[in-house]
Amino acid sequence: MTTTPPIASPIASASPTTARLDPGRPVVPGAGTLRPLGVGDVTIVDGFWGARQELNRTIIDHIEHWQEREGWLANFDLAAAGTLPAGRRGREFSDSEPYKLLEAMAWELGRRPDAALAARFDAIVARIAAAQDPDGYLSTRWGRPGQGARWSDLEWGHELYCMGHLMQAAVARARTGHPKDLLVTVAGRAADLICATFGPAGDQRICGHAEIELGLAELGRALGEPRYIEQAALFVERHGQGTLADIEWGRSYYQDDVPVRAATVFRGHAVRANYLAASAVDVGVEQRDADLVDAVTRQYDRTIAARTYLTGGQGSRHQDEGFGEDYQLPPDRAYSETCAAVGSQMVSWRLLLAHGSPRFADNLERTLYNVVATSPAPDGHGFYYANTLHRRVPGAAADPNTASKRADSSLRAPWFDVSCCPPNVARTLASLGAYVATVDDDGVQVHQYVAGEIRAELPDGSPVVLEFGTDYPAEGRIRIRVARAPKHNWTLTMRVPGWCVGGATVTVDRPDGRIEQRAAEPGLVVVDHLRPGAEVILDLDVTPRFVVADERVDAVRGCVAVQRGPEVWCLESVDLPGDASVADFRVDPGVAPRMADGRVVVRGRLRTRADGGDAAWPYAAPAVMRDGEEIDVPLVAYHDWANRGPSTMRVWLPVG
Amino acid sequence: MTTTPPIASPIASASPTTARLDPGRPVVPGAGTLRPLGVGDVTIVDGFWGARQELNRTIIDHIEHWQEREGWLANFDLAAAGTLPAGRRGREFSDSEPYKLLEAMAWELGRRPDAALAARFDAIVARIAAAQDPDGYLSTRWGRPGQGARWSDLEWGHELYCMGHLMQAAVARARTGHPKDLLVTVAGRAADLICATFGPAGDQRICGHAEIELGLAELGRALGEPRYIEQAALFVERHGQGTLADIEWGRSYYQDDVPVRAATVFRGHAVRANYLAASAVDVGVEQRDADLVDAVTRQYDRTIAARTYLTGGQGSRHQDEGFGEDYQLPPDRAYSETCAAVGSQMVSWRLLLAHGSPRFADNLERTLYNVVATSPAPDGHGFYYANTLHRRVPGAAADPNTASKRADSSLRAPWFDVSCCPPNVARTLASLGAYVATVDDDGVQVHQYVAGEIRAELPDGSPVVLEFGTDYPAEGRIRIRVARAPKHNWTLTMRVPGWCVGGATVTVDRPDGRIEQRAAEPGLVVVDHLRPGAEVILDLDVTPRFVVADERVDAVRGCVAVQRGPEVWCLESVDLPGDASVADFRVDPGVAPRMADGRVVVRGRLRTRADGGDAAWPYAAPAVMRDGEEIDVPLVAYHDWANRGPSTMRVWLPVG
Repeated sequence: MTTTPPIASPIASASPTTARLDPGRPVVPGAGTLRPLGVGDVTIVDGFWGARQELNRTIIDHIEHWQEREGWLANFDLAAAGTLPAGRRGREFSDSEPYKLLEAMAWELGRRPDAALAARFDAIVARIAAAQDPDGYLSTRWGRPGQGARWSDLEWGHELYCMGHLMQAAVARARTGHPKDLLVTVAGRAADLICATFGPAGDQRICGHAEIELGLAELGRALGEPRYIEQAALFVERHGQGTLADIEWGRSYYQDDVPVRAATVFRGHAVRANYLAASAVDVGVEQRDADLVDAVTRQYDRTIAARTYLTGGQGSRHQDEGFGEDYQLPPDRAYSETCAAVGSQMVSWRLLLAHGSPRFADNLERTLYNVVATSPAPDGHGFYYANTLHRRVPGAAADPNTASKRADSSLRAPWFDVSCCPPNVARTLASLGAYVATVDDDGVQVHQYVAGEIRAELPDGSPVVLEFGTDYPAEGRIRIRVARAPKHNWTLTMRVPGWCVGGATVTVDRPDGRIEQRAAEPGLVVVDHLRPGAEVILDLDVTPRFVVADERVDAVRGCVAVQRGPEVWCLESVDLPGDASVADFRVDPGVAPRMADGRVVVRGRLRTRADGGDAAWPYAAPAVMRDGEEIDVPLVAYHDWANRGPSTMRVWLPVG
Repeated sequence: MTTTPPIASPIASASPTTARLDPGRPVVPGAGTLRPLGVGDVTIVDGFWGARQELNRTIIDHIEHWQEREGWLANFDLAAAGTLPAGRRGREFSDSEPYKLLEAMAWELGRRPDAALAARFDAIVARIAAAQDPDGYLSTRWGRPGQGARWSDLEWGHELYCMGHLMQAAVARARTGHPKDLLVTVAGRAADLICATFGPAGDQRICGHAEIELGLAELGRALGEPRYIEQAALFVERHGQGTLADIEWGRSYYQDDVPVRAATVFRGHAVRANYLAASAVDVGVEQRDADLVDAVTRQYDRTIAARTYLTGGQGSRHQDEGFGEDYQLPPDRAYSETCAAVGSQMVSWRLLLAHGSPRFADNLERTLYNVVATSPAPDGHGFYYANTLHRRVPGAAADPNTASKRADSSLRAPWFDVSCCPPNVARTLASLGAYVATVDDDGVQVHQYVAGEIRAELPDGSPVVLEFGTDYPAEGRIRIRVARAPKHNWTLTMRVPGWCVGGATVTVDRPDGRIEQRAAEPGLVVVDHLRPGAEVILDLDVTPRFVVADERVDAVRGCVAVQRGPEVWCLESVDLPGDASVADFRVDPGVAPRMADGRVVVRGRLRTRADGGDAAWPYAAPAVMRDGEEIDVPLVAYHDWANRGPSTMRVWLPVG
């Protein structure tokens, strides 16, 4: 532990969040530039995310069904009956999955009451509560005769990890009108035990998978219990002390190689790295420790600059589900785990609240549209765990009744032996409204564009209600109607995304008939003096365009990708003539991509070996190639890929 | 099992190998186009491989030291004392390592008698023999109270794998003048038990790591025991029946996905795949089963065409040490395990003997110079396990007193927790002479060029002695003096390597003063009517040249590599000005590589971002780049990389 250093970051100057009944905010920092809204403050209707929030009801049902079917819920019943370890099913971390399901249900209930769903929620909580030991310990995998002793395998045991997710679920429940819920009590008892066990004079180790830090910090905030935050801080600072065993992939795998304050970039397991970073921001903000927040910010920026895919995905190594070295970003072995994207969003959101810079919202948007939206199948019954950017061989459709063993399932699979991703998607979609906008002393900041309504309260208690009409990202126009607003001046701040290199136009149509229009560059655009009835129209240029990668991203040299608005597009072989593979297509970078029938179209040609075969040795004399006629080929938004069945696919298109 | 099909392959027409005292041949097929010589038939002096055979004495000492130090030899003492499992050290397959050490020692002793080494050999054999169970079972890891039951984990237990290596060691001993050695007895007893256990009516499963097939087949040949060959055939044919559990990486990992006859390409774990393929050739040849040999040949050709690195290395995935998909060959995540190269050579050699085509010798040469020669450090005390083709960040020198946990050790490491590679290098170097030349009914075929002497015997019993003078591959000239030759006509066949696109010249200087000269293209060149005193000079064009990859090898698009003779060359940052990284160099493909001071030199320039930094987002607008002056930069032969300390390195150089 270090003592609290002199304060420099914006977190120092902000006033504490007010203590009114929480509208359902996943993260409530005690300081920072921006203050979050809750899931009850934002209604998303229709459109890209509205449809996905609707789908999320199906996803939640699907998850509960599979957790029941796989016995992960029944493990708690066995624990309560005292018959464990006999009959226990699932991996060592399976307890965490019902907790994430509960978190998703809690946000969903906070968003929209539903008696049937509430009853299911209560039933699961009761089963979990019955499995808790008298001293607060809760695990179906450890601590009984015939199981390993408590805390005997912190490297791989995931006990603290699981209980961290329990706490995040409790936070969701407490923040959506149920601060005295049984789940909150259960989580609090677990937190108390952990503080007693791992406190300043206790066990000095950490969990091999960061998460307890996130759970403790937010539960401490939600319950007003500084001990939990202090315990989170202890865990954060203990990373990099080498208390965990060295393993084949090095202690960087669980961020036990370098102290958080000393690290320069995210490394190791991408989910672990992001969860730890998010919790370090929480701790730094809560303890007014600008050095810690700034250290994470530098690492985050470096990671975005050198270790992130075009989609926002992170993790370029299957072996350890980890970050590769700088610029080591192979499309065809992109791991880009869905959960790593969820973790990355947690960091982005926390840094956005702390600093206010739109670059954090840019990253959050990119990841939402291109990873989180990519994972679930359109029917809610399949998921990507890993999100490759290049499929060389058409995959095989997953059996809807079989859990996949493989994280690199070729198409979306109904379930996985390690099934962290589906509930991570569910809790993200359920709480999505909370990530749309914030308030500060001056007004409202809109970070993500959705159709719906924002009901904000400025620090002086005056309400602001904004109605959003948009088909974003299919179109770049966002209409914002001011339904309620205070009489005194206030500001509406809108993000012009970093991808909007063509610029934006803001049109303000005031009730008195005045119309103002101005251009805006990527960054923030502020409009003030808005009265009820005013309408603001933000036009973002969503012309599709080619993007190229830094030359050091060796794996995509000589290629371009296509982006339109926040969406990355890709080529699927189903859109090519005959039985051509995406390997056969060369794009003409001199012909700009254009829109036709709602799809991005690029020009290029098929290019194949003139001999129609393969060289006996692929490094022999250059093959004679045969170029086909120029053709226009439609692309598909990356989040929609493989929705038409097995196909080869690539995001990065070779030019030529 | 299938019945023996109609015979079409060349294996059918050849006469059986004669039964004279074996000169030390690793593989003695019962049929085939070519017949092997033994380690006692070929003397390699000085030069590239002579120096490495000398170094191999140090390597063998090093391996024995570490196996003793790590307790892998002592495990056998514990087994004999009846005290296991207490005190056992090493992984489940550690028994295999002393067996491979014994094999290396046996070939080494066959190559050059050494009383001290022979005594060490005998001492190890005695320790191993004392650990064998009365029924022939031999494992320090399984079968005792407190250990798993015999054959209870064929997926991962490696029992049969270990005993396969025991048999290969016994073959080396039997074929180098000790057919009644204790080691041979021990191996025979193990083989008998395995035949009894896994025979036609017995346990129908296979071992998760192919190797027992190789051991049984060759031990059967060496001891004239057809039962062993039949058992090898059973194991080969049982692959692809799904008798092993499905695992995260699929049954392809251990080639239990598709029957050997039905497969189209090598897949899964690269060592396993190659060992299985080699044994399938053995079985196919022995059973005159041309279909089986041809099936493996097709798979091999496809694997060379689409799943092999420029170095001959195989395996492009760290995760499962496995083959990637076709053309998925990232230089920076090349696994290219040393052992996979050794396995690939086993297949190449067997197919060369079966078919006689020089393409198999081409592949064998490529792998010898660029993987097997790359692994050991110049002092014999360090090894590469994986052989990357691109190092982005300088590695850290390994501690000479610490076994590495990681297969992707950044520099050569003294030892590994999984230390299969050092003894695989040792047994390859010790037996290298046996892979240089063959005989057939017409004469002698020279496949690899070394300085030294070949003492062959033609099928009619007449001796041929050839003396080789060359500094190959530093130079392309090979002088062959005919020291002994029969009076009747015979042929000398020489391989003109596939890399020799500049062509070759053959000059024959006959004792009667006639001098003949002719040009030759890659393939085979034949000279006949050679009498003692004749000299043949083969001049191979070793001008360095750029090579490019098939366009489908996405990871090296826009790059060239440099090859000279059989050697691949690479760029190390230590040869660049200042603190430049290999990422900063762009090669000028218009200026041919040239030789200077014994090194290949290429022209190019340093190219860096004009802003000297990094973009916040690497897919933003193309960076303004600053090109340096043209510079000439020396490369280094890939097998010598990192001999001057940590460095960044790349084989594939971006052009521009």
